[in-house]
Amino acid sequence: MINSNHLENLLNEMTIDEKIGQLLQVTVPFLTGASSEGQVTGPMEEMGLHHHSIRQVGSVLGSVGAKEVKQIQQNYLKESRLAIPLLFMSDVIHGYRTVFPVPLAMGCSWDVDLVKKSAEIAAKEASVSGLHVTFSPMVDLVRDPRWGRVVESTGEDPYLNQLYAKAFVEGYQGEDLQKNPETLAACVKHFAGYGAPEGGRDYNTVDMSDWMQQEYYFPAYRTAIEAGAALVMTSFNIINGIPASANQKLLRDTLRKDWGFEGTVISDWGAVKELIPHGVASDEKDAAKKAITAGVDIEMMSTAYLNSLKDLVIEGVIDEKLIDEAVLRILELKKHLGLFENPFRGANEQKEKELLLSATHREIAKQLAIKSSVLLKNERKTLPLDKSQQIALIGPYAESQDLMGPWSLAGKQKDVVSLAQGMRNISPGMNVNIAKGCNINEPIENGVQEAFDVANTADVIVLALGESEEMSGEAGSRTELTLPNVQLELLQKIKSCGKPIVVVLFNGRPLDLREVEEVADAILEAWFPGTEGGSALADLLFGSANPSGKLTMSFPHSVGQVPIYYNYFQTGRPKEQLPDEDRFASKYLDAPNEPLYCFGYGLSYTTYSYSDLKLSSNTLSINNKLDIEVNVKNTGQTPGEEIVQLYVRDLVGEVVRPVKELKDFKRVHLDPGEEKEISFQLSEEQLRYHHTDLKKQSDTGDFEIYVGSNSSDTLSMSFQLEKNEGGAYENNRNI
Amino acid sequence: MINSNHLENLLNEMTIDEKIGQLLQVTVPFLTGASSEGQVTGPMEEMGLHHHSIRQVGSVLGSVGAKEVKQIQQNYLKESRLAIPLLFMSDVIHGYRTVFPVPLAMGCSWDVDLVKKSAEIAAKEASVSGLHVTFSPMVDLVRDPRWGRVVESTGEDPYLNQLYAKAFVEGYQGEDLQKNPETLAACVKHFAGYGAPEGGRDYNTVDMSDWMQQEYYFPAYRTAIEAGAALVMTSFNIINGIPASANQKLLRDTLRKDWGFEGTVISDWGAVKELIPHGVASDEKDAAKKAITAGVDIEMMSTAYLNSLKDLVIEGVIDEKLIDEAVLRILELKKHLGLFENPFRGANEQKEKELLLSATHREIAKQLAIKSSVLLKNERKTLPLDKSQQIALIGPYAESQDLMGPWSLAGKQKDVVSLAQGMRNISPGMNVNIAKGCNINEPIENGVQEAFDVANTADVIVLALGESEEMSGEAGSRTELTLPNVQLELLQKIKSCGKPIVVVLFNGRPLDLREVEEVADAILEAWFPGTEGGSALADLLFGSANPSGKLTMSFPHSVGQVPIYYNYFQTGRPKEQLPDEDRFASKYLDAPNEPLYCFGYGLSYTTYSYSDLKLSSNTLSINNKLDIEVNVKNTGQTPGEEIVQLYVRDLVGEVVRPVKELKDFKRVHLDPGEEKEISFQLSEEQLRYHHTDLKKQSDTGDFEIYVGSNSSDTLSMSFQLEKNEGGAYENNRNI
Repeated sequence: MINSNHLENLLNEMTIDEKIGQLLQVTVPFLTGASSEGQVTGPMEEMGLHHHSIRQVGSVLGSVGAKEVKQIQQNYLKESRLAIPLLFMSDVIHGYRTVFPVPLAMGCSWDVDLVKKSAEIAAKEASVSGLHVTFSPMVDLVRDPRWGRVVESTGEDPYLNQLYAKAFVEGYQGEDLQKNPETLAACVKHFAGYGAPEGGRDYNTVDMSDWMQQEYYFPAYRTAIEAGAALVMTSFNIINGIPASANQKLLRDTLRKDWGFEGTVISDWGAVKELIPHGVASDEKDAAKKAITAGVDIEMMSTAYLNSLKDLVIEGVIDEKLIDEAVLRILELKKHLGLFENPFRGANEQKEKELLLSATHREIAKQLAIKSSVLLKNERKTLPLDKSQQIALIGPYAESQDLMGPWSLAGKQKDVVSLAQGMRNISPGMNVNIAKGCNINEPIENGVQEAFDVANTADVIVLALGESEEMSGEAGSRTELTLPNVQLELLQKIKSCGKPIVVVLFNGRPLDLREVEEVADAILEAWFPGTEGGSALADLLFGSANPSGKLTMSFPHSVGQVPIYYNYFQTGRPKEQLPDEDRFASKYLDAPNEPLYCFGYGLSYTTYSYSDLKLSSNTLSINNKLDIEVNVKNTGQTPGEEIVQLYVRDLVGEVVRPVKELKDFKRVHLDPGEEKEISFQLSEEQLRYHHTDLKKQSDTGDFEIYVGSNSSDTLSMSFQLEKNEGGAYENNRNI
Repeated sequence: MINSNHLENLLNEMTIDEKIGQLLQVTVPFLTGASSEGQVTGPMEEMGLHHHSIRQVGSVLGSVGAKEVKQIQQNYLKESRLAIPLLFMSDVIHGYRTVFPVPLAMGCSWDVDLVKKSAEIAAKEASVSGLHVTFSPMVDLVRDPRWGRVVESTGEDPYLNQLYAKAFVEGYQGEDLQKNPETLAACVKHFAGYGAPEGGRDYNTVDMSDWMQQEYYFPAYRTAIEAGAALVMTSFNIINGIPASANQKLLRDTLRKDWGFEGTVISDWGAVKELIPHGVASDEKDAAKKAITAGVDIEMMSTAYLNSLKDLVIEGVIDEKLIDEAVLRILELKKHLGLFENPFRGANEQKEKELLLSATHREIAKQLAIKSSVLLKNERKTLPLDKSQQIALIGPYAESQDLMGPWSLAGKQKDVVSLAQGMRNISPGMNVNIAKGCNINEPIENGVQEAFDVANTADVIVLALGESEEMSGEAGSRTELTLPNVQLELLQKIKSCGKPIVVVLFNGRPLDLREVEEVADAILEAWFPGTEGGSALADLLFGSANPSGKLTMSFPHSVGQVPIYYNYFQTGRPKEQLPDEDRFASKYLDAPNEPLYCFGYGLSYTTYSYSDLKLSSNTLSINNKLDIEVNVKNTGQTPGEEIVQLYVRDLVGEVVRPVKELKDFKRVHLDPGEEKEISFQLSEEQLRYHHTDLKKQSDTGDFEIYVGSNSSDTLSMSFQLEKNEGGAYENNRNI
């Protein structure tokens, strides 16, 4: 086994060109272009790359399957003087060939174990297909649904995001990257603050206080790192005046020094060269200097390092030590992945055939899609449907297999179960008539009339509406959050039939659903549910499964309310504490302060009652814990799973505290009539937060506990956090 | 003359109750209730105030006229053991009895001298009416038109805001507050960052980096202070986790220590007690402790100080020195105002009669309204109107005298010249038919039909539309930026007449004008133009005056674009540098990045051409200046004033730099055919900004100069900032 000493020896043998090669990452075609065709391809020329540079490249981006990966590795190693294997990385975001629901949907499952399982499966499929690293998880905190990449986040809550961050990293990486080649190294992204672009426009400026960073935006990155994430990706954005990829404070002080991260830092696609348009680097050379100085090890898809680092060293502008450190971290990563022992690692064509899209994987994808769907409305028990009903299935998503959502590169549409197919699979003889009505964004000739005719003969109408995949994801920012007009027109026309309407939504962000809410009898938020989407939704629609997902991102009434999130700070003039006629409250003249659907919200086919909230004490001190108990009862006729949520409010802080803060939750199965006592424990440590000195501390004094089925429907009780008797309270700090 | 020594002696004679009394500010009715009726009024009881407290109150809020002020002062002094006169303060924001355009409109005049003149007049009218202090200027930087108080700001540009901040302060305060009793002490507000509430909702959370504060949000406060502003008002909002009124870093470090402010700090209305709902104080006593410790001298309209400071001193929680310092600052202010010599100061009933609404004051108000109006569109020379045309004047603002806008407390609607009256004044025999059509927010029975009939008989239609006064201003936040639906319906109906339509807009914020822009042939943005609004607009509509105002706040296409402002930072993937088909640019899928009308935009009845931009050198060094010259020609048939704007871009900064930054401008009169060479000078000092160490420095290297008629229509040239020969460059710092 190769050890760190060997790596240093290896480093010492490397020429500066070989070192710099390790810092470059290009896409697969560069390698295949160079290796199989032996000539400079178009894009290579464009990037100013030549064959000899490609021979020294340290890592590759893209997924092409086990066979080609092995071929590329083999060819590469043949030409590699020191036989340092290539690293293969790709965006495996929510599954590989078996595509799971998009991350925002996974967030709504509140099933951390199942999400971890999905990451394990993704790693298994991707690693046997030859990949070593996935650019996941994205743990950026999000509060603005205009931003298209909210689809890739797990939501607006820092605590929940931390749990998912850990689950993803542990799921991908397993126990040991080297011993188990059916794992992937995780790359947490996008460091930092990428989820808060101004105006919700992708890549745009981010600015926030150091306190806001530490308390809200940074914890999930840190958790992923503490869970062992091997890599960190820098974000595209400026943060507090400095682009992340040139940000020494961020990368050297926070990441390396404060958090002790020893893994590899990689730029996002082209982000090093983008320091030029950002206006902090005059040219490629300047960009290279700033990025390497800040601490970017691998430059993805731009060539500032390749073209300039050597000169910068020769000219004495930068110390070669900076390059050595970066190279060593990359070699360490290769070592951790076991590539020096076996450069092909997990790549295995036979296993690829067996594992990809296996029945087990599909089943997990289906379970996750079931748990990720959120029932937003269900009047007059419109859902579940009865198989004896005459059903009209209408809308651009009725028969669409385009259910995988953004970043499902290795997924194949042909493998996706559409909603229509899912319904047919459940009951082949079912009375379902189908009409598309319109495309996502354009009308179809006579489409609305045909849909109307189909709807008119039905007992109930299922309208499958939504955004196209391209309307969210990277660079998928929107200023309007409504469904496309053509679909709203279809909805209004169908409404005129006077039949019950179930709207099933496929989309990548919280939408402005005011018009849908007004018209629909039931609304099921399906997000982009992945390969098994149609199967999961059919189970839900017909009641073989009971919806249990809960929103992890607030749905605003309209875009004019954003940013909107549940854990806001109370103003000095809270609307709810002032008479309605008092103008001088913090409110809008034309809209509520609250979202249309709040964080933690989601209905079920059954109902749950909460009662008997009890605390073991009305005080908590530093050395003990508070037991919190509540009775939750299934008061309906259907078995179901309820997500019981625990929130806390610190009534008086050294710094302002949010009106509610999620501290824990439980997913509980309850049969009809069944009642369970659900218990939580709360410790002083969970009440710590960043004070003005940016140290984590708790505040003595009054707290409120909230337990309930969503962030606004809760029971509550009070307790006091006491000063510790032994006077040790002053020491309960945790940087 | 009383001197500081005397003040200290006076302080030493004061009981602690008398001292604390100085720190309290209540409204006029408390004083009149206590003095003339000698009994506790309802509100007094509610606030827990008693006669003996009122006798010791240090200042009063509200404006009631010279006679009553003198009466109150006289009664108060009779009962005052140490004969310390009362201070009278009020919100004199854009004029007193003579009401000038709202501040956002004044901003659009780019006529700093005229704005200063308006402040002089306001001070004159208010001081002879007995006031001593105005809660003005509000210099909060604004970028989000949802926030109702954008109407009180001068716009989105830090440089322009600084010029106006200085103009207001100097206008109000004159040369010497004591020697000239026809002046007011200025209170700059709201410190700090009040203009950046999250979601544009008033009083809401503000969060930004220290760098953003120093570089963009703080300069105008500082300029006002450097111009001599006697007071600073704390803002309602949390900034970076701590409410402004409890924010030691803000008030002690930045304001007192870094900026050397020695004047009085006053809370906003009730803001000290609001520390409780903010969640940083457990009760009134805790709030008092935090506010006095942070450095709030006067508590406006809450009684935390009155009820708790004495106990806090007795208990040793706070040092009485904190109270003494605050009292001394208030006594100093009274001394500076000459109140110890003459407690009635400027209050003069005779002068009140002469000065208020004098012809001179009205004339300045009219001139400012003319210069504040912005011509947004003028197709086919629809404007100016011809007096021989048959004109239909339609809309809720056709005959309205409600043109003063928010914060015009001493103004009287009956004194306002309506648009209809203004038009009649110009030409009594004019053919104008009038119909209201609808109210601001509600339909009128048959209103639209009547308006349609009137419109149908006309040659041209003037539609006077807008927001009500209540739709902007404090607590006037909106999630939609369009005109109220009822007015848009009126607009659409009138459009069907097929006649030319001129829309005149009365409103307090940038609006979403997409629909108006589509229908109207001409759009004149009148804002709330004040007492002489109708006269000014009549002059503009008929061409006796030529529009020259330019927007100082961007008009978005829609609310989904906000925040939007001209001096943004370029992303790493600028849309304008990438091919249209490249998805991965920083852009919206459904809207442009640009506003509908940009900063600096405004049309005229004539046209101007810009040519021959010249720089005296293509380099600038620290010891010399760059001369910039451009030829501007009136290429139309009408004399006019053009606002020639100079912008700079620092192409490579240590920190990211905005794509354009206003550095200077000139308001230039040009007769038809006349051409002038306009010159500017630029020095290295003007290129300094806050680097990462928060020190002001410039960057050597490439800069771009832009000169033009608005922020997007410019000529440009490049120059280089050079390192200084003598090596002194390293010292060009300025904290």
